[in-house]
Amino acid sequence: MHFSTREATISDVPEILNLIRELAVFEKSPHAVVVTEKELEESGFGFQPAFKCFVAEQAGEILGMALIYFRFSTWVGRTIHLEDLIVKKAHRGLGIGSALYALVMDYAAKKKVRRVEWVVLDWNQNAINFYEKTGALVLKDWYLAQMDEEGLKRFIQTQNGCI
Amino acid sequence: MHFSTREATISDVPEILNLIRELAVFEKSPHAVVVTEKELEESGFGFQPAFKCFVAEQAGEILGMALIYFRFSTWVGRTIHLEDLIVKKAHRGLGIGSALYALVMDYAAKKKVRRVEWVVLDWNQNAINFYEKTGALVLKDWYLAQMDEEGLKRFIQTQNGCI
Repeated sequence: MHFSTREATISDVPEILNLIRELAVFEKSPHAVVVTEKELEESGFGFQPAFKCFVAEQAGEILGMALIYFRFSTWVGRTIHLEDLIVKKAHRGLGIGSALYALVMDYAAKKKVRRVEWVVLDWNQNAINFYEKTGALVLKDWYLAQMDEEGLKRFIQTQNGCI
Repeated sequence: MHFSTREATISDVPEILNLIRELAVFEKSPHAVVVTEKELEESGFGFQPAFKCFVAEQAGEILGMALIYFRFSTWVGRTIHLEDLIVKKAHRGLGIGSALYALVMDYAAKKKVRRVEWVVLDWNQNAINFYEKTGALVLKDWYLAQMDEEGLKRFIQTQNGCI
């Protein structure tokens, strides 16, 4: 199978959003994607982009993507966060995910960050096996905490009510 | 107890690093902190800072801090990550953590992000209870994955050996 990898451009945004939606379905959260093409265009491909995206393509078709951005760890300094690593369902198992993953690790090494980090669902054993095989650590003693938009509104209202 | 909160300045860095080290001890990773004062100064208080830090103080003494930065979710767009929320051991239980947490949520609401997120250790029940009481969701079905500096080096070497 012949595919190539490259950095995404703004014209890839529709396909990127399709892949994001495909991952959300796979992760059993089909309605969680509220981001729009316009937001992806403005956030990722303007001045001071909020993320960088690599894509894999074959004959002009985007088959997969890896989306990253910098974070800051107060323990180790600047890190890279791998937000999404997605391969189209019909093209899995062909090395596309590995190639994109290796591209991210290469980029991280060039940027001299002390860590690359990401999250994985506890039932996604294929992914966990792959990550561990590459030398990554999968930590099982941390929970993710989130305050969503609605929760934020309610919290602020409660706070104001208390003052 | 009277304390005030404000945005941190570069002269707070030594105290910020002390707090970071105190949290690492609490989280049973006392040797995990390799970040230096210089890195914190350059990353947080220069041009295009990588994070923003709020501190609580009383009579010139820093008693706690909350450190945040922006991330990008491919599901909901720009988010705020709460990297650290720390209160000095001798001053816990006095509302300092709550005040800093509220400051972060206020900031997030002003910035109109759709989510604030952070991580918490599974045994830190006090923190989990507090977060849930404020309306945050604590998700237990995600694992954190990390490729550290050594793993990154080994991975790159293996990759190069394979080509």
